[in-house]
This record gives sequence, C-alpha cells and structure tokens, in this order.
Amino acid sequence: MRAAVFAAFTLSLAAPAAMAQPGVDVDTGKLSSVAPALERYTRDDLLGREWQDDALSKRDRSLVTVAALIARNQGEDLPNYIRVALDNGVSPAAISETITHLAFYAGWQNAMTAVDAAAAVYEQRGISRDELPAAAPQEMLPLDKEAEAERQAYVQKRYGDVSQGVVDNTEELLFRDLWLRPALEPRERSLVTVSALIAAGHVEQIPFHLNRAMDNGLTKDEASAMLSHLAFYAGWPNVFSALPVARDVFESRKGE
Amino acid sequence: MRAAVFAAFTLSLAAPAAMAQPGVDVDTGKLSSVAPALERYTRDDLLGREWQDDALSKRDRSLVTVAALIARNQGEDLPNYIRVALDNGVSPAAISETITHLAFYAGWQNAMTAVDAAAAVYEQRGISRDELPAAAPQEMLPLDKEAEAERQAYVQKRYGDVSQGVVDNTEELLFRDLWLRPALEPRERSLVTVSALIAAGHVEQIPFHLNRAMDNGLTKDEASAMLSHLAFYAGWPNVFSALPVARDVFESRKGE
Amino acid sequence: MRAAVFAAFTLSLAAPAAMAQPGVDVDTGKLSSVAPALERYTRDDLLGREWQDDALSKRDRSLVTVAALIARNQGEDLPNYIRVALDNGVSPAAISETITHLAFYAGWQNAMTAVDAAAAVYEQRGISRDELPAAAPQEMLPLDKEAEAERQAYVQKRYGDVSQGVVDNTEELLFRDLWLRPALEPRERSLVTVSALIAAGHVEQIPFHLNRAMDNGLTKDEASAMLSHLAFYAGWPNVFSALPVARDVFESRKGE
Repeated sequence: MRAAVFAAFTLSLAAPAAMAQPGVDVDTGKLSSVAPALERYTRDDLLGREWQDDALSKRDRSLVTVAALIARNQGEDLPNYIRVALDNGVSPAAISETITHLAFYAGWQNAMTAVDAAAAVYEQRGISRDELPAAAPQEMLPLDKEAEAERQAYVQKRYGDVSQGVVDNTEELLFRDLWLRPALEPRERSLVTVSALIAAGHVEQIPFHLNRAMDNGLTKDEASAMLSHLAFYAGWPNVFSALPVARDVFESRKGE
Repeated sequence: MRAAVFAAFTLSLAAPAAMAQPGVDVDTGKLSSVAPALERYTRDDLLGREWQDDALSKRDRSLVTVAALIARNQGEDLPNYIRVALDNGVSPAAISETITHLAFYAGWQNAMTAVDAAAAVYEQRGISRDELPAAAPQEMLPLDKEAEAERQAYVQKRYGDVSQGVVDNTEELLFRDLWLRPALEPRERSLVTVSALIAAGHVEQIPFHLNRAMDNGLTKDEASAMLSHLAFYAGWPNVFSALPVARDVFESRKGE
Repeated sequence: MRAAVFAAFTLSLAAPAAMAQPGVDVDTGKLSSVAPALERYTRDDLLGREWQDDALSKRDRSLVTVAALIARNQGEDLPNYIRVALDNGVSPAAISETITHLAFYAGWQNAMTAVDAAAAVYEQRGISRDELPAAAPQEMLPLDKEAEAERQAYVQKRYGDVSQGVVDNTEELLFRDLWLRPALEPRERSLVTVSALIAAGHVEQIPFHLNRAMDNGLTKDEASAMLSHLAFYAGWPNVFSALPVARDVFESRKGE
C-alpha cells in the first residue's frame, strides 16, 4: 500500500477501536508531506463521516468501493480495500465472484488486475481454494424465464442484426450463467454492477441495472447512499452524470 | 506477465498445438487461487471460443485487442498481447505504427505505456530498428483530396471559431500525415481506431470512423465480430453503448 | 521516468537552452527503438510547437497537463510533469492544492496516485511542509453568497430527493470549503477542473465549469489553446466531444 496513512485510516473502517490500540502504526507521513488538506478531508469526511453513515452498511460500502476500484482499474489500492471488505464481513467467495462478475462488466484485464490484488491478500490470510466458489456449481439460482425471455427478445430484435455474437454471449454467458451463480446474492451482484457502471461513466446502462438492483432488494435509501459514497471514489462528475438517470428510475417506481 | 495462467493460455492463441508439447508451462496457479470460474470463462469462452471464431482473423483479433489495451492504458498485459500479435502475423512495423496512431486517438501517455511494453518485446525478440517505419517516409499513401477537403471544410466551419489549433492539427498532423503513412494498411488503421474508440467509450466518434473503416474494406461481418471480441476486453457496457451507433451505420450503408 | 527520451525532451520545456548544454542526456533510445515517427511527433509537434505556442502560458500548460494526467490516473509520467510545472513557476502549494481539488473531481484514488508522484518530487527537491497550504486555512476566499445560493437551490430541487448526501457534500465540502481555499487562484482552480473534465470525457459538466472558468478570468483564446493542448494528452476524441459544448458556451457569452 503506497499511502501508508490511508492504510492506517482504512484499518479503522472495520475496527474503529484499533486506532487507540498500541501497535497500530498511523503513519501520516506521505499524505501530509504533500497535501495536508487532503489528509483532513480523508480522515474527517471520507473515512470519519461518509464510511460511518449507516444509510449503507459497511459491508455494502466495501462492495461498492471494491467494484469502483475494479471498474477504474485501480489495482494499487485494491489489496487494502479487499482486506477491509473481508473485515467487514464480505466472504472470500463473494470477493472472488465480484471479480469474475466484473470481468464482463468492466473488461477482462480489469479483472486480472483484481486477481493479482486478491491473490496477495488471500495468500497472506491463508484463504484456501475450498473457500472459493466452484468453477461450475452444481446448483444454480432459478432463472426468471419470463423476464429473461423478454430481455433476450428485446436485445435480439434491436441488435441481432448488428452483432449476433454479442447477443448470444449476453444470453448464454451473462444471463443464463454468470447471474445465476449462487456465490453472490442477486442484490449484491446488482450492487457491484451498478457501482461499476457509475464509476466508469456508463450512464446508458444504469436504468436497466438500477431497476434490477431494486427488484433484487436494494432500497432507494441505500441507492442514494451508494451515490454519495461513490462521489468520493469515482469523482463528483460521474455521480452528477448518474443523478438524473437515478431520479428517473426512482420516479418510475413511485407508488410501488 | 502477472497472471501466468493467462500467458500460457494466450501462447496457445498463436500456436494451438503448443499446449500439448512438453515444455509449455501451464501455470494455472494465481487465477484458480482466486476465481476458478473466471479461469473457466477465460479458457472456454474467451480463448477457447471467441478467439477461435473465424468471423474475424486472429491477426485482426490481435490488432483489436492491442488497440483496446492501449486505449484503456493497460500496460501490464500489453507485452503478452504484442507477442501474440507478432505470432499472429502482425509485423513489428504495424505494431509501431499502431502505437504512433493511438498516441493521437488515445492520448500521448497511453502511447508511452505501449512504447515501454513493445520495447521489452522487441528487445527480447531482437527486432531491430531497420524493421520499423521511417519517422518521415519518402512515399506516403495518396490523399483523397476531395474527401479530405470536405471533412476539413465541415470541421473548419463548425469548430474553427472554437479552437483553430485543434482544427489545424487535425488536418496537418492527422489527415495529411498520420493517416497517409504507408506502414499500416488503411483498413487496419481504421480497425485500431474504431476499436480504441469503442474500448474507451467514445460513442460520438464511432459513426465517422466506422464508416471510414468500411470504406477501407472492413466488412459488416468483421465489424460484428469485432464488437463481440471487444465485449470481453472493453467490457459489455462499452459494447452495448456502441451497438445502436453501429446499427445506424450498418443501416445507412444498406443497398451499397 | 520510463521513457528517457521524453524526460529529456520535457526538461527543455522549462529551459529551452538546456538542450544545447553539455551534460543534458538526450537518450532517445527507447522511443526510437519502437516508434521513430512518434519520437518525431513528440519532438516537433507536441514539445517543439504546441508547448511553445504562447496562446497559453507554459505555466498554464503545466497545470492543464498535470490535471489531465491526474484525471486519467497516469502516475508514471506525473513526477516528470510535476517537475516541469515547478520549473514553469507553479508553486508546490499550487500543486498540492490541485491534487486535493482533483480528489473530488477525478476520484480519491487518482489523487492518491498523484500524492505518490508529488511526494517523490518534493523529497528530491527538499520542499518542506511549511511551503504547503494549511489543512484548514484561517482565511478563506470570500463566498459569492448569491451565486452559491442559486446553485444550491437548483441542485437541491433537482437532486435532493435522489441523494441528499451528494447534495449536502457538494455544498459543504466543495462550494463552501474546497473552492474557497486561497492556495489556488480561482482561475487556476477552474482551469484544472475543466481540464480534468475534458480529459476524462465528462461532457455534461463542461458547460457549468467552463462558464465558471471564464467568469474567473480564463479568456476564450486561452480556452481554445487549452483544447488544442489537451488533444495530445487526452486524445483527439475527448477534445472532439468537448468542441460542440465549448462552442455553445462561447456563443452564449458573445457580446459580454
């Protein structure tokens, strides 16, 4: 971890009391040697306030952050945030599944960067292969056949003549395989998908996946908190581009 | 190469038989220690199926992949994919020219990342400077004066008062110099341009360059296969943003 | 610095005469071993012509370049460009403040990458902490209460029900704190914001911030030159997406 102060700060995300314990090295050297104000914003506003706001659980915040870093291919900080995620109750299986999922939604090499980051943490913590999801699980989640048939018909009609390969892979690999893998709850799979889309500026795909996330159990309040959290990790502009789209989704679901 | 299993897999892209030969080290360690499912998708679906689909030649797939990685500044995996490209028949000159070309279309520092990656491979393979294109070739490709005059007039009218510098550089450096360099076929120059645009989410510029690519000889079936290939390397969202744009281009050219 | 030729070139950006002095090591090895044409474009067009065009000062060009690299998370070349910025008259305080500012506009981890880059340069040059802006300055710039109330009312009305957290943080952290910090002139704060937005493709946010930049003293000619400069560092497509937006802003301000 390059910015030692940040590592020390983030340790406290999972175990706030640790800050007061002897042996926890709070090295604020590098960050304060360059930008004392950024150290203040990091400590007070990002880690001290945003992460502590219980509108979104620390476990969800960890998934959102890991997804944003994978989507933005920021491998240097990933090991630290994967450690925080494990400490916040995200299982090694769920992290593995998030990486696999985002290979499709953030690009294959972004996932390879995350594999490197996770491999270092898993080795360090002695996480063994039998804690990981099977390559091909025997039991998959049930498919909502009607919804998938409708989605596929829509995509086939619009894009079948543009790239049948994309249309077929989307059905076979994504919606009849990846999304049905049981090692990640559908709500969490949606949470990391939407986070990755916002973090990488993929505004067009937010409506489908934010609706799906809410169908899968993400509440409006949680989605609002996710946007606030992502502003720090994805930058304000990505979140401001997502706000009007999220507003339309929220309004379309009113009265549900 | 960080993910050894991937290096071993990709070796087989150029020489399928190599997998069965003694001496080829298939180290599936790191990837399977984190995400066995991602290993399966990589082996079966990306390398085993998508790369083997002859709707797009392996040579083209290599150019598309290298362009996508440069556009996304993913230098860690570039050396391996440059090696695969060389094995698939892309000349060192064509790789150099792709890097130079994408300095303009993906940003200067992305090209510098690619220079680092290629320098390591060229040194390893003993590729010498006399195999590379001249800085200023004596003979350039012929300019389509009418088309260029039309393009320049359009851009001058729309943007001359916004930034004459951009308009002038676009004419002098890009369309009267870079695009006329003979070391890359116009079809390939277009292929790496369109791939880079899709991989970086530059939807607005796709119509002009996809039309140009097809004028330069890229078929609709090849463009469709390029989209399917890019879904893996650029992520599904970038390709889904490109699909409606590609559809409009394909429809506008019907009956040609 | 990975591409030694580039480091040697860029040294000359601050001290053109240095090229002729003995002791300046112009190692054109790596770049010319891969792409002689790119070496030519770099020397003649980017460093020899674009950087020397006085439509934008070298000091501004340095801020624009540093902002673009932070926005694109290109840490490898940052130390060199931070050195050039210091040589061109950007103070260590202004660089620190740019990094802090872009944590919000380009994402937290991009700022952490820049902290690493700056820390190396600051240590090398013996820049001490008392040259840096305070974490919480005693005197802030005056707030334009009317403009901020109007901005906040607009955002509250549009997005308060979408994410009150984002709306509150935007007011409290950005417009009532960060933007009022005195260590960076408002014109420069705007310059790095707009550069970062263009470099990362955030087209939607350009109108507000380009207007603000011009309110803060950036002239139309300087903005035009900024676009031309950014084409090289952010790639032509990002600048071509910004051109129509900039045109609308310029036209809306005619007759001022």
